[in-house]
Amino acid sequence: MPVTRRNQRAKKGPAPRRSPCPVAYSLDIFGDRWTLLVIRDLFFGRTRFKDFAASPEGIPTNILTERLERLLARGIVEQIPAEDGTKRLAYRLTKKGKALGRVLRAMRDWGLAWDKSTRVQIRRSSN
Amino acid sequence: MPVTRRNQRAKKGPAPRRSPCPVAYSLDIFGDRWTLLVIRDLFFGRTRFKDFAASPEGIPTNILTERLERLLARGIVEQIPAEDGTKRLAYRLTKKGKALGRVLRAMRDWGLAWDKSTRVQIRRSSN
Repeated sequence: MPVTRRNQRAKKGPAPRRSPCPVAYSLDIFGDRWTLLVIRDLFFGRTRFKDFAASPEGIPTNILTERLERLLARGIVEQIPAEDGTKRLAYRLTKKGKALGRVLRAMRDWGLAWDKSTRVQIRRSSN
Repeated sequence: MPVTRRNQRAKKGPAPRRSPCPVAYSLDIFGDRWTLLVIRDLFFGRTRFKDFAASPEGIPTNILTERLERLLARGIVEQIPAEDGTKRLAYRLTKKGKALGRVLRAMRDWGLAWDKSTRVQIRRSSN
């Protein structure tokens, strides 16, 4: 089959399931260095692209765009109107996204227990 | 500074800390599609390189080699003599590695709750 633009786009969709393992399913969605940091920010009350981009880890904006699209496609975040009255959109966690709180807390506690230089900074956004 | 072989090797070491966040610390170690699957296999009682390589997700052996080296360097696994009496080595979780059980259980339960086609297959290795 010739490689057409359509084929290339299809290849960018979700990869085929690696196994029936629920851990593998989870990792296919958020098994990377960035996605759970965006979800952490959403738990902290951040809602806007610029808020996520301003986090101290410095996520590259092209990666942030791709991750937000994936999270929308997987039903983990949803778009809502921004509170500043502009036409821009904001993001919030769905029920499926909020259910990741237990994963994040487990990672937070593991990091705190095994690296003394880590610390929790609860920084809710101003809105 | 000219790029020498030594510089290149240094660049392959642990990346500089992205932030003091314990979640970022955790993701710097196992924020990828594969590492937690190897740790899952260790919880299942698998101990050998060939066991990890035989898991259904089909981890590429070059990635497996790199991940095991990283887990050793981070004190998450340790090497022990293989039980077959050969000079080969096997791996087991340290206390730090076993502490990741809570992360894995949270991811397992999230996957089971949100994707009906996932299922747990407890398959302990024969040894």
